[in-house]
Amino acid sequence: MLKIRRIKELSREERDRILRRSRVDIESVLSDVRAIVAQVRERKDNALLQMLKQTNPKAGAEDIRVQEEEFREAEGLVSKELKEALREAAQNIETFHRAQLEKPFWSVEIREGILLGRVTRPIEKVGCYIPGGRAPYPSTVLMTVIPAKVAGVREIYITTPCGEDMKVNPAILYAARMAGATSVFKIGGPWGIAAFAFGTETIPKVDKIVGPGNKYVTAAKLLVFGEVDIDSPAGPSEGLILADSSANPQYLAWDLISQMEHDPEAAGILITTDETLAKEVQGLLMGLLPEIPKRDIILGAMGSYSLILIAEDIEEALDFVNGYAPEHLEIHSPNPFELLLRIQNAGSVFLGEYAPIPVGDYASGTNHVLPTGGAARAFSGLSVDSFLKRITFQYLSRGGLRSIAHGVSEMSKAEGLLCHSEAVMVRLKDEG
Amino acid sequence: MLKIRRIKELSREERDRILRRSRVDIESVLSDVRAIVAQVRERKDNALLQMLKQTNPKAGAEDIRVQEEEFREAEGLVSKELKEALREAAQNIETFHRAQLEKPFWSVEIREGILLGRVTRPIEKVGCYIPGGRAPYPSTVLMTVIPAKVAGVREIYITTPCGEDMKVNPAILYAARMAGATSVFKIGGPWGIAAFAFGTETIPKVDKIVGPGNKYVTAAKLLVFGEVDIDSPAGPSEGLILADSSANPQYLAWDLISQMEHDPEAAGILITTDETLAKEVQGLLMGLLPEIPKRDIILGAMGSYSLILIAEDIEEALDFVNGYAPEHLEIHSPNPFELLLRIQNAGSVFLGEYAPIPVGDYASGTNHVLPTGGAARAFSGLSVDSFLKRITFQYLSRGGLRSIAHGVSEMSKAEGLLCHSEAVMVRLKDEG
Repeated sequence: MLKIRRIKELSREERDRILRRSRVDIESVLSDVRAIVAQVRERKDNALLQMLKQTNPKAGAEDIRVQEEEFREAEGLVSKELKEALREAAQNIETFHRAQLEKPFWSVEIREGILLGRVTRPIEKVGCYIPGGRAPYPSTVLMTVIPAKVAGVREIYITTPCGEDMKVNPAILYAARMAGATSVFKIGGPWGIAAFAFGTETIPKVDKIVGPGNKYVTAAKLLVFGEVDIDSPAGPSEGLILADSSANPQYLAWDLISQMEHDPEAAGILITTDETLAKEVQGLLMGLLPEIPKRDIILGAMGSYSLILIAEDIEEALDFVNGYAPEHLEIHSPNPFELLLRIQNAGSVFLGEYAPIPVGDYASGTNHVLPTGGAARAFSGLSVDSFLKRITFQYLSRGGLRSIAHGVSEMSKAEGLLCHSEAVMVRLKDEG
Repeated sequence: MLKIRRIKELSREERDRILRRSRVDIESVLSDVRAIVAQVRERKDNALLQMLKQTNPKAGAEDIRVQEEEFREAEGLVSKELKEALREAAQNIETFHRAQLEKPFWSVEIREGILLGRVTRPIEKVGCYIPGGRAPYPSTVLMTVIPAKVAGVREIYITTPCGEDMKVNPAILYAARMAGATSVFKIGGPWGIAAFAFGTETIPKVDKIVGPGNKYVTAAKLLVFGEVDIDSPAGPSEGLILADSSANPQYLAWDLISQMEHDPEAAGILITTDETLAKEVQGLLMGLLPEIPKRDIILGAMGSYSLILIAEDIEEALDFVNGYAPEHLEIHSPNPFELLLRIQNAGSVFLGEYAPIPVGDYASGTNHVLPTGGAARAFSGLSVDSFLKRITFQYLSRGGLRSIAHGVSEMSKAEGLLCHSEAVMVRLKDEG
């Protein structure tokens, strides 16, 4: 049974536990992961091979990279329907991410003779981690590779775990080829992350690593951060549903279930001002449960961080939402846009009764690589910006330099960097 | 003597050493810093007080935060000239950073019935670390606080080391007040970073920590990354100067000196296609050295990662620049904009003979918190974007949902998430 609680009756401890949810417990795996990262850094391909041989003793160096014939084979193994679905999704993702592109060059003369500006450049080499534990995730291939491609990244590599037979799921290979990935490697876990961070004989060193993964992958990303850039650390999925009495309880029940089927640690939370609706959803959910294939996972999620919360009014509900900073947020209300304007912290927001979270997971075009565990307070989801750098520049005329020379001189004296002042003054010397 | 080398004659090892330069050696301090971070997390203000008492046994809890009277006192201690310089710099920094603001809300109907968009929101609480080791850095107060303010951040905190007398440098306090910081704390090093990451009785937990620091500060930032967001890890300053025969050797000599006076680990590098110019700069530099107050630091920098490089042609020079990914880049050439367009990796670029790096360090308006050690391959300098989050959203009509329902269903089946499909289908049920 999915518990129903009033927000105002939550104890401090309960509230903290819900807000904290299943943060990735990195500490417990850190020393194991550090050893793996060091191994890969030092022994490169040999370390990767040693790992591959544990599941398949016949693995050789040629098994690290997916070969051309494997892509061809995959092409034949993916159904026509799935290909069509992936193509449509890719088109929508590309359209939305193209809309994110900013002016690649702008400048402004902030005072006479001082021109400041910014040029935007794609990162050159990117590594995308595609998880393969619970299931294959071809959708994550599209969500990581397409924005990089739109940004103009020239080398986009994928790494993903392979099976005991040294094969990568065909839908992943099909999606990788379609989205324009440069190469695909069969190295999962911290090994894959370390290979991207330091490079091996077969796997190139990249400038940034993106994509979700389990706690071992996340720990490895944190350990190599600084050596390369990474996206935000990822934890179990979360969906928060904000609904008033206009909502359809049947839809809410399915949305909670579809959120909870991700993972026994996933959080599906309904917040509503309508107690009758809350009970109705609770009842419907229990009624649906017997027909659900992933019942055990859902029961797990119900027992951990999922629940139904009753808010006194919309203010209390919004406060909770912004404090929670959910990865996904659904808003069911006659005018959901009005409430959107009051959301401060969230990864992606789904407005109205016809926008269930799964449309964003797969096909509408928004990105599904989103900040979890409250990271939405400071982090954004993956976007074209994730693959761009911004370089500032300036051009000064002699008059422009003259106009700020005195200021530079005063400040450099205050900071004890006298030659900074000289470098300016030497250029104006003959002006006395 | 600053060495002169030809790029094509560098050995693999020399090249690697120059490109790698003084990367922060985090590993060596990591376990000490981890212990400090754990102490602050657990014992909060008590841990901070214990640290303060080491330099001043009389320190009390009231010494953690700068008091109102200390701001008033600082106001009286800063010279009229420095105040004026800080005000002018602040104005330029604000103007340039305002120009970076993006549309806070946009949407696009990517196909009939599917509206996707993005809202931009400021991060709510930010912590700025202002170093105080070698010298006070009021300029860094402006460079961190003003972009946050322009982005709309409501709570902007500063922490910085204080002296044995429990005082913070008056110019820092003056700049903090002028730029609009909420509070200033007197806690330096890993203690300050840990306090911002976890919060104490006196220091609030923030969502993001920015600002440069020594290797202890950088190690602490890496350790708390994930718990909060951070800007890019910072190392010693670097300035790379690309010059053809049109350059004024006198200016180049001073620019190299002003780069090297930062730190014995700082890198000042001149790359030129003109061997005569190279030798001239080398000679001028040696001639200037005796008059320089920070001669020892400059001699240190000359012996570590600074040098003059001769390139066969502009192609070789540009290749080196992009491989180096410098924090600062000066371009001395008759048409520096043409070369700017060929720069892929840099923090900030200074064009023409009247734009020495110190103008950007202090007063022209660009930000001086920039990626070092090659991080410019993936990271950008601090900007308004550093303090904004982007939240995507979507609104679908029933028709819009119908148009992608089949695709969602196919992909959810491929990933074994069948309830994802049901959550869509239940909304279209009576359409059969």
